[in-house]
Amino acid sequence: MFRCEGFATDSADKPLSRTTFERRDVGERDVKIDILFCGVCHSDLHQARNEWQNTIYPCLPGHEIVGRVSEVGSAVTKFKVGDLAGVGCMVGSCQNCPNCADGLEQYCDNGFVGTYNGIEKETGKVTMGGYSDAIVVDEGFTLRIPENLELAAVAPLLCAGITTYSPLRRWNVQPGQKVGIVGLGGLGHMGVKLAHAMGAHVVLFTTSPKKADDARRLGADEVIVSTDPKQMEAHATSFDFILDCVAADHDVNAYLNLLKRDGTMCQVGAPEKPLSVAAFSVIWKRRSFAGSLIGGIAETQEMLDFCAEHNITSDIEMIDINDIEAAYARMLKSDVKYRFVIDMATLKKAA
Amino acid sequence: MFRCEGFATDSADKPLSRTTFERRDVGERDVKIDILFCGVCHSDLHQARNEWQNTIYPCLPGHEIVGRVSEVGSAVTKFKVGDLAGVGCMVGSCQNCPNCADGLEQYCDNGFVGTYNGIEKETGKVTMGGYSDAIVVDEGFTLRIPENLELAAVAPLLCAGITTYSPLRRWNVQPGQKVGIVGLGGLGHMGVKLAHAMGAHVVLFTTSPKKADDARRLGADEVIVSTDPKQMEAHATSFDFILDCVAADHDVNAYLNLLKRDGTMCQVGAPEKPLSVAAFSVIWKRRSFAGSLIGGIAETQEMLDFCAEHNITSDIEMIDINDIEAAYARMLKSDVKYRFVIDMATLKKAA
Repeated sequence: MFRCEGFATDSADKPLSRTTFERRDVGERDVKIDILFCGVCHSDLHQARNEWQNTIYPCLPGHEIVGRVSEVGSAVTKFKVGDLAGVGCMVGSCQNCPNCADGLEQYCDNGFVGTYNGIEKETGKVTMGGYSDAIVVDEGFTLRIPENLELAAVAPLLCAGITTYSPLRRWNVQPGQKVGIVGLGGLGHMGVKLAHAMGAHVVLFTTSPKKADDARRLGADEVIVSTDPKQMEAHATSFDFILDCVAADHDVNAYLNLLKRDGTMCQVGAPEKPLSVAAFSVIWKRRSFAGSLIGGIAETQEMLDFCAEHNITSDIEMIDINDIEAAYARMLKSDVKYRFVIDMATLKKAA
Repeated sequence: MFRCEGFATDSADKPLSRTTFERRDVGERDVKIDILFCGVCHSDLHQARNEWQNTIYPCLPGHEIVGRVSEVGSAVTKFKVGDLAGVGCMVGSCQNCPNCADGLEQYCDNGFVGTYNGIEKETGKVTMGGYSDAIVVDEGFTLRIPENLELAAVAPLLCAGITTYSPLRRWNVQPGQKVGIVGLGGLGHMGVKLAHAMGAHVVLFTTSPKKADDARRLGADEVIVSTDPKQMEAHATSFDFILDCVAADHDVNAYLNLLKRDGTMCQVGAPEKPLSVAAFSVIWKRRSFAGSLIGGIAETQEMLDFCAEHNITSDIEMIDINDIEAAYARMLKSDVKYRFVIDMATLKKAA
């Protein structure tokens, strides 16, 4: 074991604060990464505050991790010391079920091991995430990071990027297809960039007309203000695919009705309350209301390589880890364009 | 024009009663069918009583029609006088949109012409359905009826049969797959028979334990009482496909959670109130909640041929057309095994 530093909390009502903790030593298949940047996902906040009622304390969040390899185990083949490396939402899975066999570890029948708030197979202890100076991960769950992209802005690709990339691929988005992205936040802005790079005609739905210019800058061909029934109606039955990135309660039928026959709307935002789906919204044009969860390791690598090729990163605001609670407060007001990323060098600074 | 007899109503609060009305003469592409039997669909009742707020009166229901051809137009090629023939839910569509081009007239972008309560293209008048002695239909919307099946029991295939057959095909149900059918009514009992004939392992979900024996007789391999959480839990994440035939409000999440990764649950029952779908029900295993509407004409013919090959018909109770209101009353209590069919010979009887 070795000592690490990071930001964690002991209970739902306490702010994150500086702590030290132990990680396992590098095993033969492990990679140790000195963390340079870690993205801030809304899940981090949900978990720290026990909003899903399943948090194991102490809780040390962070699953959008990039850094440099500082040590490798004897059996590691994909990485050497000095390489860039990344870790997303998962650090393990059973590797035995049909879903793992298909490279879809996120749907592991035995449950994947989360990068934080999971149970580490190697030690039986709770996993600690990326708000820290280093992490040790099985190379099978470690991603190669392209050298040509701005490293801090790569971090959010490991959750927000793959969460939007995977359904766009799964539902086979093709050049020229009309693709809707609902909501321009951390997920939505990646959805716009990725669908645009795939050659789709991208339509951004937002409740905020003032986001229109930014949406176009990010790659949207059209912007629809979803609160205007006329604008919505003009696009009835015209979409091949819609990616719904909204985590608040909203009327999904308004979007389902915009799908062509056999079109799919996929939910990646996770509203707390169930969504109301009118039977006729799906029956009339044989539509589907689907969901998707992050992506498998192989697909995450494919996404990173796609982003390297198309020069895609997240739009970020860099923060000092000592300001994490202020960042959470702004995130709750959707006041971020479009993802906070912690500069981990600030961990060495006195608070 | 020629005179027909049938059962219709003038308003939502009046019972159906005997009436005479006019139909168009046989045009060059038309088939005239002397109706022998007509199935009674729950839609007939909804429409007669204006429960969808779109009924055009007088309303003469019936869209599960079988009979014998008594006259054909000069350009008709598929039928000759004396042939059996059938008509389902549609008697026309635009024939120009992409959905019509794909043989999926039920999703016609300009709206298909319903067998009743539609606007007849040839005359501009409201269409009158199958609760009558004869009907004139474009041969493109007329089905060939196999000679080897019990004719009265074929009638419900034209709506209940195709409504369940089409999604089983669309989602590619294969021998050995585990397929759930929710609800054992007019639709559900056809779903069980058809999925069984396709070689699936069929599981019937019901709230009524007393339906178990009948479900097995119809082809179910297993019966699950859906109100028993233990029985439901034992089948978690194990279904390839679930066909939901329930038209009343119910918890669809309980079924979504039984689907394997990438599994689909398809709604063919149409509850009045929207259904509550938890985002995580679809996100966790990338599941889909879909819908499906009857089937195209070519697929309806394929279904009839499949039923002929597998000796499948509906389980029916034959009724006198003078008892149609009593049948409606029983249908509202789900007191029918499993479809009422009107013996149209009774139309000639004094009431």
